[in-house]
Amino acid sequence: MKSKLIWKGDLGFVAKGGSGHEVIIDAAEESGGHDQGPRPMELLLHGLAGCTAIDVVLILKKMKVELTDFSVEVEGERAEEHPRRFTRIHLKYKLKGKGLTEKNISRAINLSQEKYCSASNSFNAEITSSYEFENIEQGQ
Amino acid sequence: MKSKLIWKGDLGFVAKGGSGHEVIIDAAEESGGHDQGPRPMELLLHGLAGCTAIDVVLILKKMKVELTDFSVEVEGERAEEHPRRFTRIHLKYKLKGKGLTEKNISRAINLSQEKYCSASNSFNAEITSSYEFENIEQGQ
Repeated sequence: MKSKLIWKGDLGFVAKGGSGHEVIIDAAEESGGHDQGPRPMELLLHGLAGCTAIDVVLILKKMKVELTDFSVEVEGERAEEHPRRFTRIHLKYKLKGKGLTEKNISRAINLSQEKYCSASNSFNAEITSSYEFENIEQGQ
Repeated sequence: MKSKLIWKGDLGFVAKGGSGHEVIIDAAEESGGHDQGPRPMELLLHGLAGCTAIDVVLILKKMKVELTDFSVEVEGERAEEHPRRFTRIHLKYKLKGKGLTEKNISRAINLSQEKYCSASNSFNAEITSSYEFENIEQGQ
């Protein structure tokens, strides 16, 4: 899997991988950048959240859950000393839909984290998760 | 450091972190997505390349190098079995400018990889690097 990053001056870059979609990366003004795009470390969290979110959508679909709303909030704690790597990352899944149960949500999240999510398993941080959900079926 | 990912239907998402810039994430058509944005695993490579590239630009600037062109090519090898984590990532730095030497380039890359780059140090993959450069100063 390949990616190429081209420098655009100062601390700005354009990244492009096999999908062909370009992503602008830049540092904040206070760090010498021009804030034309997200920070590199944000992209790590976005990629992690996107990877596990795709898993969870696919697994719940197989379980006949009909999602109406779904979000993942990620919080990454970083070491205080350089290199300021992620030491702990918490994923909070928020789901709304028909057919959601504690059992199928926790199973979907566990399958993602332990078996399928290539991103989660590429980090050396401790990754934890929690979830909250609202079932819109009446009487459930 | 926080990020939030919101589901947009099928396998599409919008991610936003502290910088406020939105990044669309989507799966390929053949995986059930609509290819409206990059894949999650691409974002991991983009973030890694962006992190070390910012370090290298800043370090070389302190060394009075005047860069004219700079790119980073990243190649990530992934495990064949699920979870298909990155097992090895190679970064190839390509530089052009005034004042570039083997010594200052290798020092800048080593400082990034070993001391400063928060992204490189957040992966459990083996990360390797190489570089090529062209010095545009006449007679060097």
